[in-house]
Amino acid sequence: MLTGNNLVAGEWRGGAATFTAVTAAGGASVDPAFAEASAADIADACAAAAAAQPTFAAMPLSQRAAFLRLMADKIDALGDTLTQRAMAESGLPEARLNGERGRTVGQLRLFADEVENGAWQGLRIDHAIRDRTPPKPDLRMRRLPLGPVAVFGASNFPLAFSVAGGDTASALAAGCCVVVKGHPAHPGTSELVAGAILAAIREAGLPEGVFSLLNGTGHSLGETLVKDPRITAVGFTGSRAGGLALMNHAAARPVPIPVYAEMSSVNPVVVMPARMAEAADELAAAYVGSLALGAGQFCTNPGILLAVKSEATSRFVAGVGAALGSIPAQTMLTSGIQNAFTKGIAVIAAQPGAALVGTGAQGTQACGQAHVYTVSGADFRANRALADEVFGPSSIIVTCADLAEVAAILEEMEGQLTATLHMAADDYAEARDLLPILEARAGRIIANAWPTGVEVTHAMVHGGPFPATSDGRSTSVGTLAIDRFLRPVSYQDMPAALLPKALLDGPSPVLRRIDGTFHA
Amino acid sequence: MLTGNNLVAGEWRGGAATFTAVTAAGGASVDPAFAEASAADIADACAAAAAAQPTFAAMPLSQRAAFLRLMADKIDALGDTLTQRAMAESGLPEARLNGERGRTVGQLRLFADEVENGAWQGLRIDHAIRDRTPPKPDLRMRRLPLGPVAVFGASNFPLAFSVAGGDTASALAAGCCVVVKGHPAHPGTSELVAGAILAAIREAGLPEGVFSLLNGTGHSLGETLVKDPRITAVGFTGSRAGGLALMNHAAARPVPIPVYAEMSSVNPVVVMPARMAEAADELAAAYVGSLALGAGQFCTNPGILLAVKSEATSRFVAGVGAALGSIPAQTMLTSGIQNAFTKGIAVIAAQPGAALVGTGAQGTQACGQAHVYTVSGADFRANRALADEVFGPSSIIVTCADLAEVAAILEEMEGQLTATLHMAADDYAEARDLLPILEARAGRIIANAWPTGVEVTHAMVHGGPFPATSDGRSTSVGTLAIDRFLRPVSYQDMPAALLPKALLDGPSPVLRRIDGTFHA
Repeated sequence: MLTGNNLVAGEWRGGAATFTAVTAAGGASVDPAFAEASAADIADACAAAAAAQPTFAAMPLSQRAAFLRLMADKIDALGDTLTQRAMAESGLPEARLNGERGRTVGQLRLFADEVENGAWQGLRIDHAIRDRTPPKPDLRMRRLPLGPVAVFGASNFPLAFSVAGGDTASALAAGCCVVVKGHPAHPGTSELVAGAILAAIREAGLPEGVFSLLNGTGHSLGETLVKDPRITAVGFTGSRAGGLALMNHAAARPVPIPVYAEMSSVNPVVVMPARMAEAADELAAAYVGSLALGAGQFCTNPGILLAVKSEATSRFVAGVGAALGSIPAQTMLTSGIQNAFTKGIAVIAAQPGAALVGTGAQGTQACGQAHVYTVSGADFRANRALADEVFGPSSIIVTCADLAEVAAILEEMEGQLTATLHMAADDYAEARDLLPILEARAGRIIANAWPTGVEVTHAMVHGGPFPATSDGRSTSVGTLAIDRFLRPVSYQDMPAALLPKALLDGPSPVLRRIDGTFHA
Repeated sequence: MLTGNNLVAGEWRGGAATFTAVTAAGGASVDPAFAEASAADIADACAAAAAAQPTFAAMPLSQRAAFLRLMADKIDALGDTLTQRAMAESGLPEARLNGERGRTVGQLRLFADEVENGAWQGLRIDHAIRDRTPPKPDLRMRRLPLGPVAVFGASNFPLAFSVAGGDTASALAAGCCVVVKGHPAHPGTSELVAGAILAAIREAGLPEGVFSLLNGTGHSLGETLVKDPRITAVGFTGSRAGGLALMNHAAARPVPIPVYAEMSSVNPVVVMPARMAEAADELAAAYVGSLALGAGQFCTNPGILLAVKSEATSRFVAGVGAALGSIPAQTMLTSGIQNAFTKGIAVIAAQPGAALVGTGAQGTQACGQAHVYTVSGADFRANRALADEVFGPSSIIVTCADLAEVAAILEEMEGQLTATLHMAADDYAEARDLLPILEARAGRIIANAWPTGVEVTHAMVHGGPFPATSDGRSTSVGTLAIDRFLRPVSYQDMPAALLPKALLDGPSPVLRRIDGTFHA
């Protein structure tokens, strides 16, 4: 049923060099062999995207939205076939993958609604004042798509942040054609989704250059893609090293382009003293549940927990140790990720002052065993290595002398996707002082919950200052993600006959700013 | 009256190394000597900006707006003192500089209104749905300032794009502290404006770290400033080489930061055939007026004019030659700019097929002599050198075989600040086909006017794809410029006691998006 081919603008193409998918659980090869995209495949995909770009950008927003809904329908219709393949390739459990499919199609439908809402066009009209000295011209602004976007599939969300994931959905919503580099850990999953997209393209009557999927195992595919002159922006979720490499390639181009890379975050969680005193046991269980969820393979995994030394905190630490005992071993996404996790916890274990709090069950070679360490605030501050992300089911409890030390540690932290405060009402006054520190360092600040859920909605920010992302001005989840792929264009004194319809005078269903005033 | 000192967070500081301003007209030194900012001055200015940042960001928007209005008042009050000094340093005429002062203070007042409007905060509220599975959290988003911004004063707008110009105004409006590198061509002008800003800071009760002015003649000041870890973004208007250098410094930092550089544009103007037939003489005079305005020292100078070969076009070319005869020699901003201009027109003159249409009057060594050349479309396409910007009062008329050749030339062009169409109604059908080409390449598309006026308003885009700017997603003129210095932050399940006021439930005077719906 799977071909193992690349999808180049509607054409399924084989190739000489191939690789195979392996099961996450056992490392066994799974049919078929997948073709490594050739230089010609990359160039043809980009050329087709550039050729399709004006047509795709110019089509009515209702048609663009209908296409996104068709994509959602076709992916939903893959049903259990998709789940079973993704389970084999990723090692993620069935319920999670069914949920992720729901999230993926929900995301596409949300962006379809957003396309039709139209406010993202940033429509502005300033009428002329011809009798002013000098005369004020008529100016009208809208935002247009940047052009073809390269999207890199992520290993840890084989559906929701891969071929038809958030980057693809928001780029298409903005009117940008997309060339996806599929993640080699789940090529079969990628092909199934690409087939669904192609079916949607054909049913919606779009040019086939709107979407291509390219597979490959080395770095050269991604590098060639980012350097292609027809690519105008990049979306990526993955490692810090990978994101930095893409940023460098993009900056070194004759025409530099924006890179939206979501890379690295330890997602600090602060448990304030009054809350710790009232709920140490409850918090311990919830913390362990969050850090071990999905084998800890979430960008928003709580990697660092900060608390002030107290009897309650000691109880919390003991509770964490106890709760870890019931955490089963879970298959990790790839052997590479499993190896890096094992090395990462060994590095933490070797740091001065780091003490093991407890571990989860040990499974097969393919599994991640949950680990939690504890360290004093002083030892943490003395030791940069403890602040680096370890991707997997591990976390460090930092026991601080006082809230001033908590604040100092937060101030020394790099940019983060999230920061969390667990508070009782008696903690609010001190929490208020921490808020500006967190606002300057994180894209999302969470109260009394855990960072590992990322709601796809209007007010979500899944972003944050470098190195959480390459560009802290953006979010990769939620409707604001569409902003990444737009640029403003102004029309001066343009005759009505040549103006875009959305910028004509008269009533409009879309939010516009007219002579400074918003009309919703 | 002038001290020649740098302004470091409220403190006027002298220094060992100095330079003097020179008159644009004669190259004579003008008192006083100006101190070159030292490494300590740069570090102290950045440290003070970082220290002031939380206070400045947290103050009520009404107070931020009042500060911008005070800045405008204090600059206005400099009156003729400012004009006279700027005239000597820049060689620009009195009326232009008085007009530029009006534009500068008008810009500050517009941004004051914009701060109070508040829509730029991008406020979004998504209410919780607690009984959903899984529960939907409460999420609320606003945009916050990036942090301290480095602004580079431009030589060609000593007021409107220098110390208190568009970059400074928009960064302050966003709540970012500013460290300005003054342009060494007008240090006295810079000091006068910095003094006015300091007076406004004191009257408004702001921390003095909100603003610093540093002077220097070499590249090291700018490089050190951009590399300072406390700087979070850069605003620049100047040469392509200068902008590229800053982009490289910013991308190579341990924490890369955005650079908004407005760099290079030839601003193509297309005169469509029917319009040419009806108005060749009128267009010739207006074109010469636009290209020679301010000695051609505008980013939006019409450097390339495209027309289709015809009897009317020949009449137009002849009219341009005649009109040039009445263009006086004008003092250029600096001897460096004058030298580069002289070299630039020599390069054009030496290209195969380039024929001189005419020149303006020849003045002193300090003056730019207007030059217009003409070349065939085929020769233009064969020769990249003709598409490079020459900064000064020159332009090239490209006579094309047909509109297909016009379209091909436009498609081969780099990113532009502006593109202009001169059209009669009979040209609309063919102009419609050119529009998507222009939209993909320019920030502003002008109909039947000339690009050299840049209105400061809501719907203006003074931006465009690289190399017109480093970041085509932005504008440096108009209220949308504030967007460059903001990043979104989301609050999840935050108790009302800790939420920013702007994100509380209840009526709001500010545009907000609540559960997907905009409320103006």
